[in-house]
Amino acid sequence: MFPEVDDRFENFPDSGFQTYHQHIENITHFMTTDPNLSFINTNILITGGLGFIGSALAHRLVNLQANVTLVDSLIPQYGGNLFNIATIKERVKVNITDVRDPYAMAYLIQGQDYLFNLAGQTSHLDSMKDPQTDLAINASAQLSILEACRLHNPSIKVIFASTRQLYGKPDYLPVDEAHPIRPVDVNGINKLAGEWYHLLYNNVYHIRACALRLTNTYGPGMRVKDARQTFLGIWIRNLIEGKPILVYGDGTQLRDFNYVDDAVDALLLAAVSPQADGEVFNLGSQESINLKDLAAMMVAQYPGGHYEMVPFPDDLKAIDIGDYYSDYTKAQQVLGWSPQISLKEGIQRSLDYYAKHHTHYW
Amino acid sequence: MFPEVDDRFENFPDSGFQTYHQHIENITHFMTTDPNLSFINTNILITGGLGFIGSALAHRLVNLQANVTLVDSLIPQYGGNLFNIATIKERVKVNITDVRDPYAMAYLIQGQDYLFNLAGQTSHLDSMKDPQTDLAINASAQLSILEACRLHNPSIKVIFASTRQLYGKPDYLPVDEAHPIRPVDVNGINKLAGEWYHLLYNNVYHIRACALRLTNTYGPGMRVKDARQTFLGIWIRNLIEGKPILVYGDGTQLRDFNYVDDAVDALLLAAVSPQADGEVFNLGSQESINLKDLAAMMVAQYPGGHYEMVPFPDDLKAIDIGDYYSDYTKAQQVLGWSPQISLKEGIQRSLDYYAKHHTHYW
Repeated sequence: MFPEVDDRFENFPDSGFQTYHQHIENITHFMTTDPNLSFINTNILITGGLGFIGSALAHRLVNLQANVTLVDSLIPQYGGNLFNIATIKERVKVNITDVRDPYAMAYLIQGQDYLFNLAGQTSHLDSMKDPQTDLAINASAQLSILEACRLHNPSIKVIFASTRQLYGKPDYLPVDEAHPIRPVDVNGINKLAGEWYHLLYNNVYHIRACALRLTNTYGPGMRVKDARQTFLGIWIRNLIEGKPILVYGDGTQLRDFNYVDDAVDALLLAAVSPQADGEVFNLGSQESINLKDLAAMMVAQYPGGHYEMVPFPDDLKAIDIGDYYSDYTKAQQVLGWSPQISLKEGIQRSLDYYAKHHTHYW
Repeated sequence: MFPEVDDRFENFPDSGFQTYHQHIENITHFMTTDPNLSFINTNILITGGLGFIGSALAHRLVNLQANVTLVDSLIPQYGGNLFNIATIKERVKVNITDVRDPYAMAYLIQGQDYLFNLAGQTSHLDSMKDPQTDLAINASAQLSILEACRLHNPSIKVIFASTRQLYGKPDYLPVDEAHPIRPVDVNGINKLAGEWYHLLYNNVYHIRACALRLTNTYGPGMRVKDARQTFLGIWIRNLIEGKPILVYGDGTQLRDFNYVDDAVDALLLAAVSPQADGEVFNLGSQESINLKDLAAMMVAQYPGGHYEMVPFPDDLKAIDIGDYYSDYTKAQQVLGWSPQISLKEGIQRSLDYYAKHHTHYW
């Protein structure tokens, strides 16, 4: 099992940034080499495996000696990018297909111990412009995958990447899992259906499944060509290209962020936790920050960077949710998960990565 | 506007069954002839229009001098039955198509003032056996219909028939609209997505839309061939065929019921109420009854009838929700709606109807 990071956090309640950094470096090192991790020689399928989080998970899992198969459609508008696995390409199987292909999925699911089900359409605006495609990927394909598990591999464990988007505009902060569900766009509704199919198949058919409601996840490997996956992507691209970061409205909306390695930790912990079956977990961060301050921080971290305040585009304003940050107490208590990488550190790593590798991303 | 039935209910707080009956007869008569009803010469489209509730609504609307078009696919497993409109067939337009046909719907939606969107796959067991078909009808087709409204008729008002099924197993009784959403079958998840698309299109695109979460609705015109629409259907068929009603388990599960005319009242009130836009409303009843007592009541009302207690089938047990009855205070307060037909009266009307017309239903 993973170390109980909560307990060790208590040793650093007010320890300041540097100490905290040293602390999390130690923990991160410990977590990625924990001899108790249960993935040696396990068979693992990752949908969206060439994407941002899927590929980071693949890196971790091959180092944990798992047999990893990556499924990705490499649709240009989505997150898949072969460069994400360039350094592990000899150590994973890559199968290019679409999760909407029920026959391919029914074959690929067989013999797997774990399915990390990360493939999805993530763009809120695209979901409004083409709602049926969003439905096909985020709901219909999920049903096909779960039916394949039921029929061909009922002992598999499924970890589904859900989203905080389904809470909509919060009634209260931080948002815990008991918060009412109220998606504000087609993407949120379809992701919710996809999430609940997983819980339903757990409850009715005993296909072990759980869902992590991810908040804004960022880091090396994310789509930075545009804002389809996360607005942080285009912010980073703009910084590196010498363009201003554009902050919409007054920039006072609060958000929380998880560095990708922290999200990977949560996925692995959920995989090995029987207590997770049938449950949903928020991910989140102890740090929340408003978008203007975030822009200012990033600009300070990237020499020559600058940002501009611009009016909120109408289409984005219509689905904006105001302030959001998560309560992830449940993930702490049940999974023993806490995020380890500070926002400043994660942003720095991301900037360094894209400054070096941007030719592979736009 | 409809009369404020709530106020008049207060005159009959403990008035007993006969007085209550006379009272609701008066109100029902008043409601169906209310000169303030705003449907004269309005153009109305009803999906599922040959089905149980859709056809009852059509009867009411033609009497209110509306121009009514009925869309139905007449799929044999669903609720459509041309006999349901036998007495009004010269006064309505019937268009046989499937709500999954986006081209047909995009044409039919044009020029309509109201869409009563009642088409749906209603069988919980069918949704588990064939989840993709349930998804196509209850979610994907709803998106197509709403897109058609957005593109071709944005001033339409849409009233969507949702279901109490999406609450799942209640945390508390009676269940109000603030109760957590927790569907226990594929049908509940897909109906929820369909409902939320409606609210989303109201909120984002200002396509006026609302949803009624119907509880067990029954009465003349319901599918009685089998239990696909409501278990009451097969109970009534069994009674009339001289077979026992089968009550599963110990029969102590509480349920509430609405006679179809009461559901029609609610649909019409929601249509003419601007306050309903973007809202969901529970329907429900002041009477709740457990299934064993209901069976006993029905047997007493049908000479020669009998019932048997039998073990709960596994597939139904897996998705059973225990006791359920609704709090419909919001519909009372916002729409001025209350159910008017007692369960005993409604069951008697239903038994009389199917005793006379059963050859058209199985």
